[in-house]
Amino acid sequence: MHKILRVNMSTKEIITEEREEYKLLGGRALTSRITYDEVKANCDPLGRESKLIIAPGLLAGTIASSAGRISIGGKSPLTNGIKEANSGGIAGAKLARCGIKAIVVEGKSYNEKTYILKIDKEGIDLIVHDDLKYSGTYETVAKLREIYGEKSGILCVGLSGERGLRAAAIALNDPFGELKFAARGGMGAVMGSKGLKAIVVNDDVSPFMEYHDREHFLKIAKGLNKQLATDPKTKDIYQKYGTSSIVKAVNAMGALPTKNFRFGTCEFAEELSGEKLYETIAARGGKGKTGIPCMNGCVIQCSNVYPDADGESIVSTLQYENIALLGSNLGFDNLDVVARLNREVNDIGLDAIEIGAALGVALDEGIAEFGDEAGCMALLHEIRRNTVLGRVLGNGALVTGQVLGSDRIPAAKGQGFPGYDPRALKGNGVTYAMSTMGADHTAGNCFGARNEVDPLGREKQGMLSRDTQKKMAALDSLGFCIFARVPLFKDPEILSGLVNSLSGSDFTKESIWDIGFNAIRLEREFNINAGISPAQDRLPEFCYYEELKTVNSVFDISSEEMKKAIIE
Amino acid sequence: MHKILRVNMSTKEIITEEREEYKLLGGRALTSRITYDEVKANCDPLGRESKLIIAPGLLAGTIASSAGRISIGGKSPLTNGIKEANSGGIAGAKLARCGIKAIVVEGKSYNEKTYILKIDKEGIDLIVHDDLKYSGTYETVAKLREIYGEKSGILCVGLSGERGLRAAAIALNDPFGELKFAARGGMGAVMGSKGLKAIVVNDDVSPFMEYHDREHFLKIAKGLNKQLATDPKTKDIYQKYGTSSIVKAVNAMGALPTKNFRFGTCEFAEELSGEKLYETIAARGGKGKTGIPCMNGCVIQCSNVYPDADGESIVSTLQYENIALLGSNLGFDNLDVVARLNREVNDIGLDAIEIGAALGVALDEGIAEFGDEAGCMALLHEIRRNTVLGRVLGNGALVTGQVLGSDRIPAAKGQGFPGYDPRALKGNGVTYAMSTMGADHTAGNCFGARNEVDPLGREKQGMLSRDTQKKMAALDSLGFCIFARVPLFKDPEILSGLVNSLSGSDFTKESIWDIGFNAIRLEREFNINAGISPAQDRLPEFCYYEELKTVNSVFDISSEEMKKAIIE
Repeated sequence: MHKILRVNMSTKEIITEEREEYKLLGGRALTSRITYDEVKANCDPLGRESKLIIAPGLLAGTIASSAGRISIGGKSPLTNGIKEANSGGIAGAKLARCGIKAIVVEGKSYNEKTYILKIDKEGIDLIVHDDLKYSGTYETVAKLREIYGEKSGILCVGLSGERGLRAAAIALNDPFGELKFAARGGMGAVMGSKGLKAIVVNDDVSPFMEYHDREHFLKIAKGLNKQLATDPKTKDIYQKYGTSSIVKAVNAMGALPTKNFRFGTCEFAEELSGEKLYETIAARGGKGKTGIPCMNGCVIQCSNVYPDADGESIVSTLQYENIALLGSNLGFDNLDVVARLNREVNDIGLDAIEIGAALGVALDEGIAEFGDEAGCMALLHEIRRNTVLGRVLGNGALVTGQVLGSDRIPAAKGQGFPGYDPRALKGNGVTYAMSTMGADHTAGNCFGARNEVDPLGREKQGMLSRDTQKKMAALDSLGFCIFARVPLFKDPEILSGLVNSLSGSDFTKESIWDIGFNAIRLEREFNINAGISPAQDRLPEFCYYEELKTVNSVFDISSEEMKKAIIE
Repeated sequence: MHKILRVNMSTKEIITEEREEYKLLGGRALTSRITYDEVKANCDPLGRESKLIIAPGLLAGTIASSAGRISIGGKSPLTNGIKEANSGGIAGAKLARCGIKAIVVEGKSYNEKTYILKIDKEGIDLIVHDDLKYSGTYETVAKLREIYGEKSGILCVGLSGERGLRAAAIALNDPFGELKFAARGGMGAVMGSKGLKAIVVNDDVSPFMEYHDREHFLKIAKGLNKQLATDPKTKDIYQKYGTSSIVKAVNAMGALPTKNFRFGTCEFAEELSGEKLYETIAARGGKGKTGIPCMNGCVIQCSNVYPDADGESIVSTLQYENIALLGSNLGFDNLDVVARLNREVNDIGLDAIEIGAALGVALDEGIAEFGDEAGCMALLHEIRRNTVLGRVLGNGALVTGQVLGSDRIPAAKGQGFPGYDPRALKGNGVTYAMSTMGADHTAGNCFGARNEVDPLGREKQGMLSRDTQKKMAALDSLGFCIFARVPLFKDPEILSGLVNSLSGSDFTKESIWDIGFNAIRLEREFNINAGISPAQDRLPEFCYYEELKTVNSVFDISSEEMKKAIIE
C-alpha cells in the first residue's frame, strides 16, 4: 500500500491513488518530490494553486526508535521557495500504519466553514467543525481527542494559520496530548488558507506495518534502539535537558541571539540554561517532567513538561530554539517567562522561532521594551485579537521589519534566523543563505561540528554546511530525529538496512544518502523555477557591517566558499 | 561639461567627476547605466550599499518643448529591481544648465540630522536643515524657495520618504511652486533612507546650454515646438483636460480601476471625467486654472490647478492616474474629494498610484468603507502620524495586502497597478508583468494603441508592449514628455536631429531608438543580477481567475505571447 490521499478543498473531493513509484520515498523526500511534481513553482503560496503535502518519514510506524517524524511541505509563504518542516508527535506513525504515504491538500475552500479531515476505519471524510473556528491549538487538540479518541493523531492549525499569517505553524499531539510543532516556513498559513483546520488520524484500521523482511528489520531496529537507549548522552543529557542542553555552549561561543541579535552572549544565560531547566522541573515536581517521549516507542525521550511554581504545567516541551528566540533574544532572564510566552505562542499556533525573531525586531524598534513580559504578552494578544499590529507581527520577522522600518532584520530568504548568530557560527550563516530552506538550522546545523571546524573561521564552512544539509535531508526523509544521528552517521548501514528490510530496496551505506541528495536537488530546481536566484544567497546587510562584539566578527564568508554549500 | 556629482551621505563628501563616456546618455538611459555600473544588484535598496541616481533628460535645458523631464533611478524597494521614475518640474533644466549630467547619492547618513544638497554659484554643499525634518512637501518647497529663491529647482521627499516608506515619491516644483512627482518605485524611500531631504539647484552659475550646432538645434526645436503648439489636440484636449481626458474612454473600455479592481467601469465616471474637471475649474475660477506648463518653455501646458468652491487651490495638478486610483478605485464619485485626498497624499510625499492601490486593498479588507472620505483621510493621517497601520499602508499595496491577508492585491513585481485593469487592457498587463519596471504604465502604456490592437485580444499584445516600452525608454532618456510623442514617433528624425545638433553625435532616425533599447537591456541584466527571474513575470492570481465582469474577461495572454515583450 503506497497510497496518496488527495483532498481538494475547492470541491471537497477526496480521492486515493496508489503510487508505486513513491515506494522508496518518505518524509521530506516525498513532500519535496510531490511539491516539485505538482505545485506550480511561481504560484501564490496562499492561493488556490498552492498545495500542502504531508508525508510520514519512510520508517515512521516501524519499531525503529525516533523514526516517526512527519514532514509537511509545499511552497512557503515566507521564502516563496519550497519548504519542509518536520515534527515529532504521533500522527506520523499512524498515517504510515494506514498505508498513507502522503496527504496532498489542494485547492482552497471559499466558504467560511471550518473543516477537519478525519481518517479512521470508518473512512476518510471532510467534516465541518465550526465549533473549532479560530480556536487555539490546545483547545483544538483537546476537543478532537475527546471526540475522536485520545489516541488520535492530530495535526492542526491555530487561529494564526486560519488567518493566513505567515509565521503560522502546524501543531501535532504527542502521546500525552501535548503539542509539538512543524514550525518553520509558515506551513500553518498554507494549511489554514485552504480552510483546513485539522487532520485527525486513527490507525484502528491497520495498526501494523508491512515489512519486506520483518525479522531482519526487527534485528537492526532493536540493535539501534539499544544503542540509543544505552548511550550515556541519552540519560545524562537528552533525558535531562533535551535540546536546551546547548544554551550555555551557544552562549559561550558568542552565538546566542540576544536582544534582536545585537549581542551574542547573554548575561542571564545561566538562568536560561538546560541545567536550570532540569533543576527547576525537578524541584517543582507536580506535573513537571523530563525524559518523556514525543513519539511512541522513542527511547531517547528528550521532551519535558515545564511546570509553574505550583507544579502546574506551563508548556511542553521547552526547547533550545524557543529559549533563545523568546528568551535571550527578547531580553528575558527567566525560564518561567519564556515558558509562558511559549505557551501563548503555541496556542495561537505560531512558529516560536519566527515570532521570536519578529518580536525581537519590534522591541528593537521600540514597540515594547526588551525584558518586558507584559509588553511581549500584549503583542501576542494583538495577534490573537487580529489587530493590524498583530497581523504585522504574525507575518514574521521580515514583514515586521519592513513595516517598522528596521535595518536590522535577522532573516534570510524571507525567514527569521533561528538561535545561532551567523557571525559567530558561520557555517550556519552559510546554511541560512544557501540551503533550499532559507534561514532554518534544521536544514544544516553546523553547531555539532564546532570542534571540527572553527565556527569563526572563513574556511571549510561551505563543505561543512553542504555535508550537514545532505545528511539532514536524509534523516528528514526517513523520519529520524536529529538526536538519533550519532550511531546513524557512524554506521549508515543501519539506515540502509532498515530501509531495505522494510521496502525490499537495495540501498548501500553510501547510496542511502542519495535520498537526501536527491531531495535537495529537486528542491533547488523548484526554487529556481520559483524565482529564487543566486542574488538571494545572502544574509541581511547588518551581518556584513555590524561587528558582533563578543567575537569581534562580521559575517565574512567569501562567495566562493558559500557556493561550495550548493547541492546541485 | 559632463559632470557627475557624487554625494556620499555616510562621509558627507561631495566630489565631481568628468565623465565623457556619459556624453550621449541622459535621463533614464543614464540613471540605468549608473545603477548598472555602480549599484550592487542584490543590495538592500534602503541600505548603505544602495544609491540614488538623478539625471536630467539628454535634451533638458534646451529650448525644445516638453523635453525637460528628469529621471530618478536606482534600486526600487518595491520591486527589488531597477527603477526609473521621471517627472516634470524645473529642476531638470537647471541641472542640465549647470552641466550636471547626474547626481549620485550614495552611502547613508547615520545621524539624526536632516540634510539638503544645495547647488548654486556659491558651490555645492550639504546643509543641515533640521527645521525641515518630517515636514510635508508643500512646506518644504515653500521654505526652500523662500530661502534659496523662488526660481530654485527643488527635489524633495516628504515625511514618508524620510521614514523609508516604500510608497514614498520625490516631489519637484514647477515654475509656480506647485508640485510634480517622480512617483513610482518608492524612490522617495531611497532618498529619505540616505538622510537627504531635498536638493536645491539654481542655474545662476551657467544659465545656458552648450550646443554642438546651436543654429541647427534651434531650427529643429522651433519646428517641433510649433508642431506641438498648433496641434489641435494641444488646445482642445491637453490644455483643457490634461491626462484626465481619458477617464471616460478608459471607463468605456471597462478598464477603469473601481473598488480595488473589482470592477472596470464606474457609474460615476462622468463625475470624475476630464470634461467635468475642466468645467469645474472654469466655473469656479479663482486660483483654478487649466493649460499651464509644468516645465519652463513647454508649449503643451497640460497642468491644471483644481480649486475648491471658493476658488482656493486644492491641488495641482489633478491627473488621470490619481483620479483613477484615489477616485474610482476607492469608490468616490466626486473630483473635490479626489483633489483633497491628492493634496494630502502629495504633502505626505507619497506616490498617489501606489497609495491608491494600497488604500483600495485596505478598504476591500474592511479597514474603512469605499466612498468614505473621512475614513480615507483618517488612513492617510495614520501615515502622517507614523502609526503601525500608517506604516503598513505607506509601504504600498503588496505589504498592505500581505499584512491584511488579501488575496486580491493589484500589484506586479511588488508594485501597485496603475489606472488600467490588465484584464481589459491586456497590453498593459503584459507591461506590468514583463517590463523592467514592474507594474508601471509609463514603462509601456498600450492605451494609446487601443484602436490598432484589440485591448481584449490575446494576440499582438507582446509586440505592442515591447514596441511601446522601447519608445518610452527613448523618450524617458531624452527628457521628453509622453504628450510630445505624436510628431516624434511620426518623424524620429526630429529626435536624432536634436540630439546630434546638441551633442555632435550621429544618430539616425532608426538608431535613435537604441537609446531606449540599450537602457532596457541594461535594466534587464541588472534585474537578473538582482534576482528577478522569469518566475516573477506574472500578474497576481486573481487576474487569472476572477472575471472582470464588464468585459467578461480574465487575463489570458499566453506565456509565449508575454515573452515577445522581452527586450534582451
